[in-house]
Amino acid sequence: MRHEDYVRTYAPRQDARPARAGSVMPAAHRPAADLSAAPASGLDAYRVAREPYYRALSDEVELYEAAYSVRLPVMLKGPTGCGKTRFVEYMAWKLGKPLITVACNEDMTASDLVGRYLLDANGTRWQDGPLAMAARLGAICYLDEVVEARQDTTVAIHPLTDARRILPLEKKGEIIEAHPDFQVVISYNPGYQSLMKDLKQSTKQRFAALDFHYPEHEVEAEIVAHESGVGLEVAKNLVHIAERSRNLKGHGLDEGISTRMLIYAGSLIAQGVAPLGACRMALVRPITDDPDMRDALDAAVTTYF
Amino acid sequence: MRHEDYVRTYAPRQDARPARAGSVMPAAHRPAADLSAAPASGLDAYRVAREPYYRALSDEVELYEAAYSVRLPVMLKGPTGCGKTRFVEYMAWKLGKPLITVACNEDMTASDLVGRYLLDANGTRWQDGPLAMAARLGAICYLDEVVEARQDTTVAIHPLTDARRILPLEKKGEIIEAHPDFQVVISYNPGYQSLMKDLKQSTKQRFAALDFHYPEHEVEAEIVAHESGVGLEVAKNLVHIAERSRNLKGHGLDEGISTRMLIYAGSLIAQGVAPLGACRMALVRPITDDPDMRDALDAAVTTYF
Amino acid sequence: MRHEDYVRTYAPRQDARPARAGSVMPAAHRPAADLSAAPASGLDAYRVAREPYYRALSDEVELYEAAYSVRLPVMLKGPTGCGKTRFVEYMAWKLGKPLITVACNEDMTASDLVGRYLLDANGTRWQDGPLAMAARLGAICYLDEVVEARQDTTVAIHPLTDARRILPLEKKGEIIEAHPDFQVVISYNPGYQSLMKDLKQSTKQRFAALDFHYPEHEVEAEIVAHESGVGLEVAKNLVHIAERSRNLKGHGLDEGISTRMLIYAGSLIAQGVAPLGACRMALVRPITDDPDMRDALDAAVTTYF
Amino acid sequence: MRHEDYVRTYAPRQDARPARAGSVMPAAHRPAADLSAAPASGLDAYRVAREPYYRALSDEVELYEAAYSVRLPVMLKGPTGCGKTRFVEYMAWKLGKPLITVACNEDMTASDLVGRYLLDANGTRWQDGPLAMAARLGAICYLDEVVEARQDTTVAIHPLTDARRILPLEKKGEIIEAHPDFQVVISYNPGYQSLMKDLKQSTKQRFAALDFHYPEHEVEAEIVAHESGVGLEVAKNLVHIAERSRNLKGHGLDEGISTRMLIYAGSLIAQGVAPLGACRMALVRPITDDPDMRDALDAAVTTYF
Amino acid sequence: MRHEDYVRTYAPRQDARPARAGSVMPAAHRPAADLSAAPASGLDAYRVAREPYYRALSDEVELYEAAYSVRLPVMLKGPTGCGKTRFVEYMAWKLGKPLITVACNEDMTASDLVGRYLLDANGTRWQDGPLAMAARLGAICYLDEVVEARQDTTVAIHPLTDARRILPLEKKGEIIEAHPDFQVVISYNPGYQSLMKDLKQSTKQRFAALDFHYPEHEVEAEIVAHESGVGLEVAKNLVHIAERSRNLKGHGLDEGISTRMLIYAGSLIAQGVAPLGACRMALVRPITDDPDMRDALDAAVTTYF
Amino acid sequence: MRHEDYVRTYAPRQDARPARAGSVMPAAHRPAADLSAAPASGLDAYRVAREPYYRALSDEVELYEAAYSVRLPVMLKGPTGCGKTRFVEYMAWKLGKPLITVACNEDMTASDLVGRYLLDANGTRWQDGPLAMAARLGAICYLDEVVEARQDTTVAIHPLTDARRILPLEKKGEIIEAHPDFQVVISYNPGYQSLMKDLKQSTKQRFAALDFHYPEHEVEAEIVAHESGVGLEVAKNLVHIAERSRNLKGHGLDEGISTRMLIYAGSLIAQGVAPLGACRMALVRPITDDPDMRDALDAAVTTYF
Repeated sequence: MRHEDYVRTYAPRQDARPARAGSVMPAAHRPAADLSAAPASGLDAYRVAREPYYRALSDEVELYEAAYSVRLPVMLKGPTGCGKTRFVEYMAWKLGKPLITVACNEDMTASDLVGRYLLDANGTRWQDGPLAMAARLGAICYLDEVVEARQDTTVAIHPLTDARRILPLEKKGEIIEAHPDFQVVISYNPGYQSLMKDLKQSTKQRFAALDFHYPEHEVEAEIVAHESGVGLEVAKNLVHIAERSRNLKGHGLDEGISTRMLIYAGSLIAQGVAPLGACRMALVRPITDDPDMRDALDAAVTTYF
Repeated sequence: MRHEDYVRTYAPRQDARPARAGSVMPAAHRPAADLSAAPASGLDAYRVAREPYYRALSDEVELYEAAYSVRLPVMLKGPTGCGKTRFVEYMAWKLGKPLITVACNEDMTASDLVGRYLLDANGTRWQDGPLAMAARLGAICYLDEVVEARQDTTVAIHPLTDARRILPLEKKGEIIEAHPDFQVVISYNPGYQSLMKDLKQSTKQRFAALDFHYPEHEVEAEIVAHESGVGLEVAKNLVHIAERSRNLKGHGLDEGISTRMLIYAGSLIAQGVAPLGACRMALVRPITDDPDMRDALDAAVTTYF
Repeated sequence: MRHEDYVRTYAPRQDARPARAGSVMPAAHRPAADLSAAPASGLDAYRVAREPYYRALSDEVELYEAAYSVRLPVMLKGPTGCGKTRFVEYMAWKLGKPLITVACNEDMTASDLVGRYLLDANGTRWQDGPLAMAARLGAICYLDEVVEARQDTTVAIHPLTDARRILPLEKKGEIIEAHPDFQVVISYNPGYQSLMKDLKQSTKQRFAALDFHYPEHEVEAEIVAHESGVGLEVAKNLVHIAERSRNLKGHGLDEGISTRMLIYAGSLIAQGVAPLGACRMALVRPITDDPDMRDALDAAVTTYF
Repeated sequence: MRHEDYVRTYAPRQDARPARAGSVMPAAHRPAADLSAAPASGLDAYRVAREPYYRALSDEVELYEAAYSVRLPVMLKGPTGCGKTRFVEYMAWKLGKPLITVACNEDMTASDLVGRYLLDANGTRWQDGPLAMAARLGAICYLDEVVEARQDTTVAIHPLTDARRILPLEKKGEIIEAHPDFQVVISYNPGYQSLMKDLKQSTKQRFAALDFHYPEHEVEAEIVAHESGVGLEVAKNLVHIAERSRNLKGHGLDEGISTRMLIYAGSLIAQGVAPLGACRMALVRPITDDPDMRDALDAAVTTYF
Repeated sequence: MRHEDYVRTYAPRQDARPARAGSVMPAAHRPAADLSAAPASGLDAYRVAREPYYRALSDEVELYEAAYSVRLPVMLKGPTGCGKTRFVEYMAWKLGKPLITVACNEDMTASDLVGRYLLDANGTRWQDGPLAMAARLGAICYLDEVVEARQDTTVAIHPLTDARRILPLEKKGEIIEAHPDFQVVISYNPGYQSLMKDLKQSTKQRFAALDFHYPEHEVEAEIVAHESGVGLEVAKNLVHIAERSRNLKGHGLDEGISTRMLIYAGSLIAQGVAPLGACRMALVRPITDDPDMRDALDAAVTTYF
Repeated sequence: MRHEDYVRTYAPRQDARPARAGSVMPAAHRPAADLSAAPASGLDAYRVAREPYYRALSDEVELYEAAYSVRLPVMLKGPTGCGKTRFVEYMAWKLGKPLITVACNEDMTASDLVGRYLLDANGTRWQDGPLAMAARLGAICYLDEVVEARQDTTVAIHPLTDARRILPLEKKGEIIEAHPDFQVVISYNPGYQSLMKDLKQSTKQRFAALDFHYPEHEVEAEIVAHESGVGLEVAKNLVHIAERSRNLKGHGLDEGISTRMLIYAGSLIAQGVAPLGACRMALVRPITDDPDMRDALDAAVTTYF
């Protein structure tokens, strides 16, 4: 998060204008076939205009492209802050498809996804929810942290995630047949799984799955340096600290320090904050209040800075 | 799910137009008597226009036809992804009846099934829910995963599933007498049954029941090959992997790999993805995060590919 | 449920027209005094036009008539599918009174019974619920499976079921004094009673009660033969199977096979389905998934067919 | 409940007309002072027009009159069916005050008591609930089975049941000062008290309390004979049966047979039903499904009939 | 509660007229400074017109005045019926400030306190809740039994009870800055505290607290005599009975007999009811159904009467 | 809280007028760059007009400024009443940004934060919630005690607290891109953390964190003296008492006495209340009803006064 551009450099949706001439956006990489099936104009705001920074870790880009080519629903698994959301944005940009993201939560109802009637001056009118809009107009619909949603949310996507590819709007008496470009992507963090909160088998079996992990040392340092503006050496030290914390997962920490947090710490250092203070504020204080854990993490910080 | 037609080949409701001349739809197979009792035009969108691919496993087609001929309510039991929904679509097509499908969930109210008043420019107006529409106009109403619904949903179908064949709309003060073509079909997965979630005896005893299982080896391979576009040998290997996983049900897996998942894996392979990667993405990763189970399933994959 | 008339033979409310000349309806059996007190026309849809088939098992018809003559509220107790609903329909026909049936469930509110304000083009207007309509216009109000309802439902009937015979519509500021023809009838299945769900003593003590059981062997076979169209010998065999299952109640089965299920099985046999298949589909599969219970019931089926 | 007059003899509110000339209503017994303070006409429907039959058991009438004279809130305690509601109706008639009865239940909200805004053609308008109406216009407000209500109901009566005698309508921004005739009466059955459901001390301490029990043998028989139309000997036998059942309370029965049930049984006998059948239907079957209890109660019935 | 004036003598808000000439209201006692800051006319109905009877027990009047002078929020702690509400009314009268009382309950929402939009003929309009009205116009807002309220109620008062003295109306997009006269007062009964229901520390630490207890013997007798109209000797005996009951608190009684109950008993005695009957009805029967406790309390009654 | 100015001295938002000439507000301290990006006029009411009194304890001001310069979301941790809210107000003033504060509670929905449709004379119109308003117009949005909110509240801020900086309004079909000035700040008290109520890791990892504690002895006394108007010696004694109570945290007290409470006590003393009474009322009585704890705290009070 560099100072001079914290609202400009990375913000793929911040303007929906087509890429400017001279842009680095590799439009030629997009499958030509897909460009022909242009989604409706109603989704312009959901287009990813500029290429998001994404550093591929394995063959996830190719696998996703294969899944998309037959429109398999895809499930992204991995811990928070390791790049799942960025990956979807990157793929949406690469495929040239609009992306509609929904942050799931336990109070979200099926109507929030599918749509509802609103009262208008002329009586009620129907308004598509994000899922219906994506299915109707042809977007990738990304349900972030889907395991947080109530069952009616996850069940609502069933007819869109098997061979039927339809979305019945029972309240409206309409059946939406999914646009050829439409695809469902969900993410969830297996570490959160509990007996109370897990996807049903009938949901799981509707998705192909990709596992995400924190990147390898060198790659993660490269990402941190690129995103925060610190030098590679500082970034490597930050990654060392994160790796120590990840070993403490399950031994006092619920989660290790994520790549996102390293970028936060790097951004503070790039702003001139002393590394020790930056690490305490961005890496240690947020994730634990346990004195022993704080000591352990503070020790890791002082080892590298 | 073949590449060139993932939105065209199989999608029985994607156009509600009558079958074209030269179509392979065996209209002659339909009982002539039923064709005379044409349901109202309001259900055209719910007609299954082209014959869905369905491979009969036993005498389920004949038993269903007998049950339909006396309009017995029918309950389909079996694991997820073994073809229950496809079977209902096939029967609806074969009988020439419209099909209204409702994905049940625990947040669905009786009003979602039966109907409700909507506020209009001219005050409130009644809108039939899917069950009322099916009963009024003469469709097969398919309540998918009915055990997920709340009791008021299941109780709402009682008067339609005994000799009375009526649906009282208490809020509207109307009694719908079921159209002669109307039938109720429900599905549920006995594996999900728990003490908390089971159908009441007074509901169960209103239905004749058909059991569904995964098809036998040869048949399942044939289905996977047909639906995904892979060769029969690859399909057989996929079925072998699934069979291994089904033996692990109850010993670390909640459910085995379903036919649907095999079709997903086959589709990826048909797209050019290496079998190992395709199986990991489509068969293993989605259903378990347990390292031991993953090892066991990965071993099964490497045995056959 | 015979094929040729599954929507015509038995469906007492399917036309509200007066009985045709030459009808077998024994109008003369009705108490003359009651015919004079004609309920309002608003209840015509709720009249039982033709005599429902009902085979009296004991003196329940006479006891009910005595209770109705002093308008005692009546409670029908017995297992599912043994004929409670049919009995109420028969009595309503015999007494010449309209019948309003409400299938109770745990999500039904007192407003669903009593009534509510609806928003109209001219503002809100009151709409009587089924209980208020029955009390105002003079019908028998039958609350099916009342134990499933929430307390506010059962408490709402209190002032109608003691000497006051009134229904206060608190939201409307009106007190309905029950029409002279009005009576409350409730049913429930003591087998479902649990500590959580039982009627309160203050509710129970407002009702006279009639016990219902499955009919005796010969009578039940006669009913099954009449309703399904199978011969008496087949019907007797079906009853034998049911009796075996009823002995298993509490020893692996929650409920035995009901008369209704036997009629289902008989209907399939009358349609030409082989008895073994018909019994499996209509008697065994619906009520249990336990392998041992299924074996026991399948054995009973093969004993008699 | 005599046949010829089940809707006429006892039904104090069935006509709100003033007592006819020659009526037996002892208007002279009413305190003259109270007659002067006539409540508003809006409560005419709530007046008790004719003297309800009430047989005083002790000094409860005098104590109630003293409490009313200083407008103390009164709590009536006792089992179901022993005459609490009838007593309140009698006192309302004797004092010449209108009576508004509310059957409390756990789904009733404070708004149901106090009032709410309704949507009208001209926007929202306020509608007093029964408690607000009683307080504003001057009625006795009787909350039947108050312990069933949620806390917000019982707390809503607090400002009306201490020295303030006001009802703040927070949603309307109005404070109703209670009419001089207004009084709150509540009933509850201590037998139902549980740890979960009891009145708060701050509610209890706002009421003077009267205990109610079943009447003594001779008195109860007299009441049963009067209300049902059977002879005194039959009535005495019915009371004997009830007394046996009351000894079983807590030893297999939740409650004994109430006076109301005896009147039900007597009414059936007066209709010509044989005493044994009448007692089984009206006394035994409603209150228990336990075979041993039924045997014990049936034995009591055969002892006396 | 004396007979001749139960709706006139004590009812501070029953007329909002200014005190009549010759009134005993000691207007001169009010701090002159406060009289100048007159609250808006919208609060006239909430003014305490005549001096409520209040017998100071310690320095609570002075402490409250000091707290009010710096507008500290005040918490009144003590058992039910010991005079907390009367004290607030007295202080409001003494300070010449309007008093808005809210009886808290667990179904009250933050909107009930803060305000909401109502639908009008001209669309929605905002209506201040009692807290917003008090803050805007300058009243003492008294939240009675605040511990009964849900957390959103208690959290809603936070910004009004620290140095900010603001009330953000999030739904309206307005920030009310508290009128200089505004103060929050809450009451609660520590005896009710449970693990489930207690104020949060962040709420408690926003209040100065005053403890309330039952008055000393002589003082309590004086209060009972004054309020009920009985002689001092009778009043002293009533207090003796109450004191015995208070020793039983925690040993079979949840709460002892309150001063309010003694006034009830005294009022009945003043009406001519025999002391024994009056004490049973007003002191013993309301607070316990336990036979042993009743015996103990009845014995205390017969000791003194 | 000094007498003469309890509504004037400290109340940063009480007038939104620009600081008067001669004001002590050090406008020059504000980063010049920020002054140029003026937020929309709709936020004028949310500007902090005059410098709030804030005594920096460590480098928290500098760290916050660094975090704000890259718009890192910030989490403030610490006990109630230690100055977290004041710190945010000070920083908002120092940075010249509007401040929108939301007091979180468990009944607050995502709609309360994000916005909702309101019914208007011309139908529904959208109204931004405080979070949407802050994001759209450019304010610091401070979610006080965020751990009290339901998950849907905390999840709603996710897209605003990572690199995307967007707020999807699913119900409106709009994506708000955060204004360059926008920042999210949350507070919570780690002492309240329980298994049931804690932030999810995916929320925690989106924030940089600052720890807050009670100030050191001398500094806290200085603050108390400044805010309450008592002399420094009295203030020191008050701090001594607080320190004793803080040692009892976890040994009978849930929380120690906060700085805010000391200011309350000091204000009462400055009003002329005797120190002992002031301390009992403002320090001891509010936080505990346990007799032993009260004795311990009262002893601390008498030690210093």
